[in-house]
Amino acid sequence: MEFGNLIDGKQISASIRLSVKEDVERLVSQGHRAPCLAVILVGERVDSQTYVRNKKKTAADLGIQSIDKVLPESATQQQVIDIVRSFNNDKDIDGILVQLPLPSHINEEAVLNEIDIAKDVDGFHPINIGKLSMRGRKPEFEPCTPKGCIELIDRSGISIQGKNAVVLGRSNIVGLPVAMMLMNRDATVTICHSKTKDLKEKCREADILVVAIGQTKLVKKDWIKPGAVVIDVGMNTDENGKLCGDVDFNECKQVAGHITPVPGGVGPMTIAMLMKNTLTSAQKKFCN
Amino acid sequence: MEFGNLIDGKQISASIRLSVKEDVERLVSQGHRAPCLAVILVGERVDSQTYVRNKKKTAADLGIQSIDKVLPESATQQQVIDIVRSFNNDKDIDGILVQLPLPSHINEEAVLNEIDIAKDVDGFHPINIGKLSMRGRKPEFEPCTPKGCIELIDRSGISIQGKNAVVLGRSNIVGLPVAMMLMNRDATVTICHSKTKDLKEKCREADILVVAIGQTKLVKKDWIKPGAVVIDVGMNTDENGKLCGDVDFNECKQVAGHITPVPGGVGPMTIAMLMKNTLTSAQKKFCN
Repeated sequence: MEFGNLIDGKQISASIRLSVKEDVERLVSQGHRAPCLAVILVGERVDSQTYVRNKKKTAADLGIQSIDKVLPESATQQQVIDIVRSFNNDKDIDGILVQLPLPSHINEEAVLNEIDIAKDVDGFHPINIGKLSMRGRKPEFEPCTPKGCIELIDRSGISIQGKNAVVLGRSNIVGLPVAMMLMNRDATVTICHSKTKDLKEKCREADILVVAIGQTKLVKKDWIKPGAVVIDVGMNTDENGKLCGDVDFNECKQVAGHITPVPGGVGPMTIAMLMKNTLTSAQKKFCN
Repeated sequence: MEFGNLIDGKQISASIRLSVKEDVERLVSQGHRAPCLAVILVGERVDSQTYVRNKKKTAADLGIQSIDKVLPESATQQQVIDIVRSFNNDKDIDGILVQLPLPSHINEEAVLNEIDIAKDVDGFHPINIGKLSMRGRKPEFEPCTPKGCIELIDRSGISIQGKNAVVLGRSNIVGLPVAMMLMNRDATVTICHSKTKDLKEKCREADILVVAIGQTKLVKKDWIKPGAVVIDVGMNTDENGKLCGDVDFNECKQVAGHITPVPGGVGPMTIAMLMKNTLTSAQKKFCN
């Protein structure tokens, strides 16, 4: 049994970005326009501004065009919806991303439901989540962070079929969809959450453990089955203000077979997958 | 610890039907028309004909109007879709049910996706399944058989929150949605299927075990945690041609705390829930 293999999200995401870049170049060399991602940002949250800036920068690096629409905190729900609709109708836009969270006076569901599912590169539309969950159905796009988790497992040469997968967390953006994707890949999936009893015992049964529960270093060494694959989606700050995950990395790497660090694990995968989804959307349009 | 309590689906479904009947009478006494369910049957499968006949009979018993449209096996997909659309547009129809399976030349997904989600009383539209799965979202309707399973648990006075629930089977019509509904009720849910290793061991961890895997008497006494709740969705015939479930009832009732028989367990709940969903659809229309 092997221990402590690092799953290097930086390297894996770099290789995905490179392949997206090459595909974008091919598309353009065939006479098509570059794929285009439209981003809507409402309000002045610093973290959201940073995410949007990073997405735009990555897009630019890969030859993907991006448009952003920034609205003040005071924007009405209808104003946001009107912009979504105008992007839906713009045939030169392939992907639409509404940066979350929205200000509290705006109904997130009402806005997200407006996004044309053919442009829902975030994969959060309920119809996409429904199709992701159902057998024999295929969503237009898989949500970016869950898709990133699966890629990390795949590219580490780990087979998912028949494995016991445990997902900590059941959020719409990570826990639920990653559980469905693991199930689609024939894992036996257990979804744990704040109401789960014996969280530690559940985790110890996992061949593949995905943690997205938002609690600093919750998962300890004795929660890990020796040799298990540990994917840490957490993004917290520790007592020294340093970025860290939901998993106590230094402890757990001694027991895990493969483990993602924070930072440099799942984090860089999300943007890479967003770029891939945007490319895919353009390819579907041009190549069908 | 109690053992072998029978969960009597006949009695529970009768009480649900009675309450639906009373609500229908109230609606009509308030001057509204009776709720109306439209059923589409394609082809001449004897089992499907029986199901449709039972649904119509139950509807009539409860004062719910039903319309049926029977198409020959040779009907085209477009013909079926045209009927769905005409039912969508008919304001006097509250629920639309397409009896499955459809003949193999018709794409089931394409037909089901056409049903107006406000009339999708079967709850199988991907947007309904998506909303059922997502936190903070509410589907228009919960699928009937899974909803029946939850009712059986609730009406037996069993709390779901924090329990270990294991679902055997991941079908779109039972396994997946019942798993999502158990998760929404704060159970820790494990979804098992044909690729699961140690099926028996997984089942033994269940406080609540829902079996919908379509294998005659698969689940044996030593698969059951003493005192567990066992819900058997199976509908098979045994070696003597008798109707039986996926659970070996005579063996398992000695160990289970509560258990559904087959027949007389989940079976009668499905139609009762369909009637309830049809009523709910009419109530939403009249009372908003």
